[in-house]
Amino acid sequence: MAAFVLNGLSRSAAQIAAARQCFVSRQVSGRGNMTSFHGSGAGPWRSWPSGGTGMRFASQGTAGRSSSSSRRGAMALAGAAGAAVAVAVFVADACNLRRAEMAASIAAVPVAKREDDDIPKRCKGFMAPPVTEVRVLRETGGDMCTRMEMLIMETQAEFCRALEKVDGGKFKADRWQREEGESTWGGGGGISCVMQDSNVFEKAGVNVSVVHGHLTEEAAKQMKSRGKVMKGKDGKLPFTAMGISSVIHPKNPHVPTVHFNYRYFEIEEDDGSKQWWFGGGTDLTPTYVNEEDGFLFHNTLKEACDKHDPQYYPDFKKWCDRYFYIRHRGETRGIGGIFFDDLDSPSQEEAFSFIKSCTSTVVPCYIPLVYKHRNDAFTAEEKCWQQLRRGRYVEFNLVYDRGVKFGLATPGSRIESILMSLPLTAKWEYNHEPAKGTKEAKAMEVFRTPREWL
Amino acid sequence: MAAFVLNGLSRSAAQIAAARQCFVSRQVSGRGNMTSFHGSGAGPWRSWPSGGTGMRFASQGTAGRSSSSSRRGAMALAGAAGAAVAVAVFVADACNLRRAEMAASIAAVPVAKREDDDIPKRCKGFMAPPVTEVRVLRETGGDMCTRMEMLIMETQAEFCRALEKVDGGKFKADRWQREEGESTWGGGGGISCVMQDSNVFEKAGVNVSVVHGHLTEEAAKQMKSRGKVMKGKDGKLPFTAMGISSVIHPKNPHVPTVHFNYRYFEIEEDDGSKQWWFGGGTDLTPTYVNEEDGFLFHNTLKEACDKHDPQYYPDFKKWCDRYFYIRHRGETRGIGGIFFDDLDSPSQEEAFSFIKSCTSTVVPCYIPLVYKHRNDAFTAEEKCWQQLRRGRYVEFNLVYDRGVKFGLATPGSRIESILMSLPLTAKWEYNHEPAKGTKEAKAMEVFRTPREWL
Repeated sequence: MAAFVLNGLSRSAAQIAAARQCFVSRQVSGRGNMTSFHGSGAGPWRSWPSGGTGMRFASQGTAGRSSSSSRRGAMALAGAAGAAVAVAVFVADACNLRRAEMAASIAAVPVAKREDDDIPKRCKGFMAPPVTEVRVLRETGGDMCTRMEMLIMETQAEFCRALEKVDGGKFKADRWQREEGESTWGGGGGISCVMQDSNVFEKAGVNVSVVHGHLTEEAAKQMKSRGKVMKGKDGKLPFTAMGISSVIHPKNPHVPTVHFNYRYFEIEEDDGSKQWWFGGGTDLTPTYVNEEDGFLFHNTLKEACDKHDPQYYPDFKKWCDRYFYIRHRGETRGIGGIFFDDLDSPSQEEAFSFIKSCTSTVVPCYIPLVYKHRNDAFTAEEKCWQQLRRGRYVEFNLVYDRGVKFGLATPGSRIESILMSLPLTAKWEYNHEPAKGTKEAKAMEVFRTPREWL
Repeated sequence: MAAFVLNGLSRSAAQIAAARQCFVSRQVSGRGNMTSFHGSGAGPWRSWPSGGTGMRFASQGTAGRSSSSSRRGAMALAGAAGAAVAVAVFVADACNLRRAEMAASIAAVPVAKREDDDIPKRCKGFMAPPVTEVRVLRETGGDMCTRMEMLIMETQAEFCRALEKVDGGKFKADRWQREEGESTWGGGGGISCVMQDSNVFEKAGVNVSVVHGHLTEEAAKQMKSRGKVMKGKDGKLPFTAMGISSVIHPKNPHVPTVHFNYRYFEIEEDDGSKQWWFGGGTDLTPTYVNEEDGFLFHNTLKEACDKHDPQYYPDFKKWCDRYFYIRHRGETRGIGGIFFDDLDSPSQEEAFSFIKSCTSTVVPCYIPLVYKHRNDAFTAEEKCWQQLRRGRYVEFNLVYDRGVKFGLATPGSRIESILMSLPLTAKWEYNHEPAKGTKEAKAMEVFRTPREWL
């Protein structure tokens, strides 16, 4: 492994990627690594000294409160260098997707200040140590990769804590890494937070991943929907991909399922120029359709969008309905929300500002619905209907979701992180069709004909 | 619609297909059709006169004990001309599969006698009227299409009755049809028999389908793994595809799940010559590994294979382990059995004789296991482990099974017939791994390293 010397200022994306990779690699002892953290706010990793260069996470390697020795299969999966979750979502979503038409008029957004001042302190609030070492994050605080990694780690912590508060349970955080050179995807890792069979939630998963490596020119070309040819050094292009992805399946059939995913991709060309873009979305999958909930959810998203571009909400709402469509059933998975990809305008700063608005909207657009319905009474029939809709969720995720498909097809993916989006339980009844005039039939009408909520 | 005149002797496959299509079309009243039959042996359709030309099934169209009016969605699906189930399995399984190497030494098999003498009488034993009208079957009794349709209908009835006997419940038979010209796949239909949430079985599905239409030369080429170019009239090739497919999910975790599928494909070239082949297999998916069961199951299959070619069992056993492999998990779906495709040697008669041996093996290789274990005591933990393995079953079927993938991607497929292979219930626990030394861990070892059973 090449030694990494921090040069300070003018490092290229490739060098930073190498640095990230190097630090990650130095932390692992075997064929990859996984460390578990229980609860938020009490992880042993929080005992590391504040700030400073060269510090080590107390829970790295085989030290700390690792439960990895008792989890042979999971280790094997993580050990197979699982890191394709974010890449999966990035790459797959970016492929063959129609680009949203951006409006010419862009609302003025103030350029964000450099956020690297208090990185070590901010890291302490995370669910687990970030994928990239704090020292590297601190040294590269102004880079978009670092700013995005900080944002997704913060979003993960904020959302997990809000879910813990409404549920009363605790998330378990698995921090997994892959060793450099394990596959063409290079290094990186992730933090998978899961709360399973808890009070309010059947299964709640919030996953962050940060991966980097080298792409062939052909693979790089396929990643952008416009198919731009990028020139790499000896045909190889260094890339970094990162994202946060979450699916929350509640127990009560009157509390909807939510999914969100925000991601950033960066590819460096031979001449040092960078291709970058953002993608993401937030969508709701209720079992029954509640007008008020649908309005609140969509309206919160629209308000976040409108701060940046009046065309974002209508365009991304349509895109969402198209994307979360179960073609063989002729129905959408839920009542949609927003979905977009390939966002590289009007500027990197303004696109990032939009992503920040989106991530800060996750809690207000979903958590109120959980509080509102978590104690709703429900019948066995309503629970059964929820289970049947969960079956459709599984169908969409395994048959159509590009991120899942790509992840499963990529050697070395961490399968448990990809498939944590599947519900704890699901059901398939042959030829089930709700009787006319029922709440179930009304829900099916909405799933079959996406509607406007605002 | 062209009138069909029965010429008796020298009709081509295209003419016969047209005849089949014509008769099927004459029976439907709307955009496709579905009729339900309850129980085996008591269907109203059995009141039609024995034999005779031009007779009508009492339960056709909207007459009879049809429950279609109360099943709007199912009608819509069936009405979308769902007929791709058999085609799906045929086409998809045939694509890109390595051909089994056939041994040179073939056991002598007596040429079967013409089986058309008592077709009307035999049809009365079926779960529902056959897809092709009895009159047409009678007139074409010597054709392989007719002989295979009779075989799969008989196998369906035999297997359903054996399942009803051990369960105590009754199958419901849905007979669905598609209208001619509904899509490029042409006409045909099927009979889907389902017994759901019964005494022994959580979900038992036995599906027959018979479809015909025209293929482009390119599509026809892709269907045969050897990629032979076939010459069609104006680039179109008439084809007929049919098959039986079944998945049985029991309630008790000690009773294994079984799957089998046998199919026949025929394509006619411009010069009147025919390309034909058989495919199929039977495989077992236990929740726990029972040595005695594994031996009985594999040995019964081997005995059926050995009557035809000593190389069949070893070759088709390996093929089965390769096919039912969940790549992203690094494990097989179950303990395998046999699987083959593209079987067109040593002669059509001998290949069909082998298929008959296979179909007649379904009951003896599975039903004894149901009797043996149906009353086994089981714990909540064992039921949970079954549900997790059902999750893997769903993963295989939705992510890898070529028949399912092709069926879902084909417009107009009858989705309920394709997805009736999914279990009634399934479960996904994040990062579940059985503890060392447990029965569950032992099962995982077998799924991770396929073994020899004999």
